[in-house]
Amino acid sequence: MLIPAIVDVAARNADWQAFVMSSLVTGLVGLLLSVAVGGALAEGLNMRQTFVLTTLAWMSLPAFGALPFLWLGVGYADAVFEAVSGFTTTGSTVLSGLDGLPPGLLVWRSLMQWMGGVGIIVMAIVLLPFLRIGGMQLFQTENSDRSEKIVARSIELVRLIGVSYLFLTVMCALAFWGTGMSVFDAVNHAFTTIATGGYSTHDLSFGYFANPVTAWVAITFMLIGSLPFVLIIQALRGQPIALWRDPQVRAFLGFVALVCMVVTVYLGLQHRVPFGDALRMATFNMISVVTGTGYAYGDYTTWGPPIIVLALLLKFVGGCTGSTTGGIKVFRFLVFFGTVRAHLRRMVRPNRVLAEEYGKTRLTSELSFSVLAFLVVYMGTVGVITLMLASFDLDLVTALSAAATAVGNVGPGLGPIIGPSGNFASLPDGAKWILSFAMLMGRLELFTVLVLLDPDFWSR
Amino acid sequence: MLIPAIVDVAARNADWQAFVMSSLVTGLVGLLLSVAVGGALAEGLNMRQTFVLTTLAWMSLPAFGALPFLWLGVGYADAVFEAVSGFTTTGSTVLSGLDGLPPGLLVWRSLMQWMGGVGIIVMAIVLLPFLRIGGMQLFQTENSDRSEKIVARSIELVRLIGVSYLFLTVMCALAFWGTGMSVFDAVNHAFTTIATGGYSTHDLSFGYFANPVTAWVAITFMLIGSLPFVLIIQALRGQPIALWRDPQVRAFLGFVALVCMVVTVYLGLQHRVPFGDALRMATFNMISVVTGTGYAYGDYTTWGPPIIVLALLLKFVGGCTGSTTGGIKVFRFLVFFGTVRAHLRRMVRPNRVLAEEYGKTRLTSELSFSVLAFLVVYMGTVGVITLMLASFDLDLVTALSAAATAVGNVGPGLGPIIGPSGNFASLPDGAKWILSFAMLMGRLELFTVLVLLDPDFWSR
Repeated sequence: MLIPAIVDVAARNADWQAFVMSSLVTGLVGLLLSVAVGGALAEGLNMRQTFVLTTLAWMSLPAFGALPFLWLGVGYADAVFEAVSGFTTTGSTVLSGLDGLPPGLLVWRSLMQWMGGVGIIVMAIVLLPFLRIGGMQLFQTENSDRSEKIVARSIELVRLIGVSYLFLTVMCALAFWGTGMSVFDAVNHAFTTIATGGYSTHDLSFGYFANPVTAWVAITFMLIGSLPFVLIIQALRGQPIALWRDPQVRAFLGFVALVCMVVTVYLGLQHRVPFGDALRMATFNMISVVTGTGYAYGDYTTWGPPIIVLALLLKFVGGCTGSTTGGIKVFRFLVFFGTVRAHLRRMVRPNRVLAEEYGKTRLTSELSFSVLAFLVVYMGTVGVITLMLASFDLDLVTALSAAATAVGNVGPGLGPIIGPSGNFASLPDGAKWILSFAMLMGRLELFTVLVLLDPDFWSR
Repeated sequence: MLIPAIVDVAARNADWQAFVMSSLVTGLVGLLLSVAVGGALAEGLNMRQTFVLTTLAWMSLPAFGALPFLWLGVGYADAVFEAVSGFTTTGSTVLSGLDGLPPGLLVWRSLMQWMGGVGIIVMAIVLLPFLRIGGMQLFQTENSDRSEKIVARSIELVRLIGVSYLFLTVMCALAFWGTGMSVFDAVNHAFTTIATGGYSTHDLSFGYFANPVTAWVAITFMLIGSLPFVLIIQALRGQPIALWRDPQVRAFLGFVALVCMVVTVYLGLQHRVPFGDALRMATFNMISVVTGTGYAYGDYTTWGPPIIVLALLLKFVGGCTGSTTGGIKVFRFLVFFGTVRAHLRRMVRPNRVLAEEYGKTRLTSELSFSVLAFLVVYMGTVGVITLMLASFDLDLVTALSAAATAVGNVGPGLGPIIGPSGNFASLPDGAKWILSFAMLMGRLELFTVLVLLDPDFWSR
C-alpha cells in the first residue's frame, strides 16, 4: 500500500493519505495477530487448521485490500468486490472511467492482482497437493510432504518462484514499453498480464493500444502465465524441454492453437476480416478468456452466437495447474477423458484390466474420483450461483456468464451489462457479494471452502 | 399405425392412406428382418451386440414412425425430429396449428409417446442395469441377471408393466374426461401424460382447458409417470408403502414440493397472483419441466429471470429411475451428494472409514464413479450440443435451452423461438438433426451411445 502512496505523492494526488492510513491499519492488525498467535503457528498446523487458515488468509487479503477504496468513498460491496476480483486475479471490475482515475488507485489494483498471482502459484505448488483438492494429489512431490528437511526446501522453492515471477514481470514490462506503452501503463499491465489478472488502466483495456505488436506481447505473457510455474523456472534455468514433455502443457497449447485457428478462420469467412487482424484479434480474445485474464481487445461478443457460446465454454477450461489461471484446469480434463474412456470400455468388456495413466503416473481410483467430483461440484456451483444471481432479476445470460466468469476467475461476462464493453458497477449489491464469494470459492478450488461448510468439519 | 388410420377413416379424412401405406412398409421390413436374423437373435446376445441392438432399436422406431409424416409432405428433418421427439417422450414439436390438424396425425403423435414411454420403462428395468449405465447397476435385481429362469420372470414382469401402464392410461383418460375434456382430447392427453411426453392436441397445450381440476389431474398423472414403475405396480397390488420407503421417491417428492412451494410464494408476492391460481400454475409448470413432460400452461418464462433460470436447472433433474422421465434422475443426485460428502470428509480426516449407502445398499467405488462420470458426461454433452447449435447462429439462450431440453427429454426450451409459447419449426434443418441425435442420446442415457463411438468397441 505504500507503493501506490508513493505514486500518488509523486503525482501530487491527495489519495496518498488513504493508502498510508490503510497500510497503518493493515500493519497494526498484522502486528497484533502476529504477536497473538505467531507462536502457536510455529508449532505447525494440523489438517483442519490448514483448511481454515487457507480460507481465512484469502478472505483477509481482500478485506484489507479494500480499505483504500473505502477510504476514497467507494461503497462496501463495491470495494470488497474490486479487492476480491484483484487478489483472485479475476479482473471483473465495478470501476469505470479508468483513464481518469488517480494513478495510485490504478497501481493498487494492478498490485493486488500481481500479489494474488504469486500467492496462487505458491498455494497450488506447496499447499493444494497436500490438501488433495480435486485430484491435486497428482502433483504431490517431496515438496508437498511435511518434514523438517522439506520445509527448508519449500522455502527455497518459494524464493525461486518469487525471483522468477519478478524476472518475468520485468521482462513483460520492458517488452510492453518497447512497443510504445508509457512506463506507467507498461508496469501496470505487466503486473496484471503475468498474473493473468486482467485489470487495465484504460476503459478500452488493450483496445487502447494501437500497435499490433503490443497485443502479441500480451498474448505471449498471458500464455506464460498459464503454464506450470515450476516448469517455467526449469525453462529459465536452461531446461525448456521439461515444458514440452509435460502432458498438461502439450494439451493446453494444442487446444488453444486449435481454438484460435478455428476462430481466425471464422472471422475471415464470416466477417471478412483480413488474416493478420483476424489472427491477432481471435488469438488475443480467446487466450484472454481461456487463461482467465479477461482483458478486452474489441468486443468479441459482437462476432456472433458461435463465438459467444465458445467463449462461455472456454471460461470453464482454464490453464495449467501451478499457474495463475483459474477454471477447471487442463489436467482435470485429461484425467477425465482417460478415466471415462476406460470406464466405457470396462462396461463393454467387464473383465478387461485397463491401466489409466496421466503422463507416466498411474492413476489411482481415489484420484480419478477426486477429479470427477471436482468437475461435478464445479458445474453445480456455477448452477447454484446462477440461480442466486437470477433471484436479483438478472437475466439468464448475465447471471450464467457472471457465475461462470466468477468461479473461473476470468473477468468480464457476456451480455450488454457485464460483457467485455461493460462492467459490474450496475449490479445490485447482493449480486456483488455473491460474486465475491464465488471468486473466492473458485480461487480456493471449491473444496477448500466446501469442507468448511460441512458441520462435521467442526465437530469434536 | 392402423389405429390412426381407423381414426382418420372414421373422421372421413384422406390421411388414412398414409398410415396404411406406412404400416405396410414397416410391417414388410419387420417381417423380412425377422426372417433374416430372428433365428440368430434367439441364440442370445453378447454384451457388444446388446449395446448395438439397443441403440439400433431406438433409431429404427422413429425412422419408421416418421413415415406417415413424410407421406403427408413433411420434410425429412421435421418428420424425423417429430418422431424422435415422440418415441423419446420429449415432446418438442415442429408442428403448429395443432387444433386444425387431422385427428389421425394427432393420435399418431400421442401413440408414439405412449409406446416410447412403456419402452423406456422396460428398458430401464430390464436392460440398463445389466449394461451398468451410469450407476444403473444399483438397480440390478435377479431380473437383470441372465439365466433361463430369469428370462421367464422378465417376460412376466414386462407383461405386468404393460397391464399396469394400460390401466393407468385408462384411469387418466377417464379422469380427464370427467373434468370436461372431449373423449378425443382425454385419450390423447392420457397417452402423453402417463408417458410424461408432452404432445398436445392444442397449440395452447393445457392452457386450452379452462377447468382448474383438469390441471390437477394432469399434475397427478405426471407425478405417477415419474415414479419407479415397479413400485407403482406394487402400489397397485396393495403395497403403497413400498413407494414411500424408496429413497428416490422421498427425495423426488420432497424436492418437487419445495420447488412448487417457493414458486407459488414467488408468484403471490411478485405478481400478486391469488393463492389457488399461483399454486396450480406453479405446480403444473414446475412439475411439467422437472418430469420432462413439457406441457405448457401459460408461459412461465414471462414470470421473470428467477423462474427462467430455475426452469433451466430443473430440465437437468428428471424423475425416478424406471419411470418414463428423462434427465439426470434423482438417484444419481442422491449418490452424488452422499459420495462427495464422504469424499470431503476423507480429505479432512484421511484415516476415517465412511460407509456410503443408498437406502440400504452399500455403494461400491465403481458405482459412485459411474454416477459421477455420468453427471460430467451429461453436462459435457449439453455443452457440446449447445456449441453445435450456436454454430447455426442460434443465440445462447435458445441453443443452451434446446440442448438441455433435448438431452433431458423435456420438451420446450426457453426464449422467444422455442419457449413454451413457440415451437422448433423455424430452426435450421441442421439444428433439428443435432437435436434429434441429442434426444436419442438422452433417452439411451448417453453411455449406451457413447460406447459405440469408441473405435475400440469395434475392434476384433
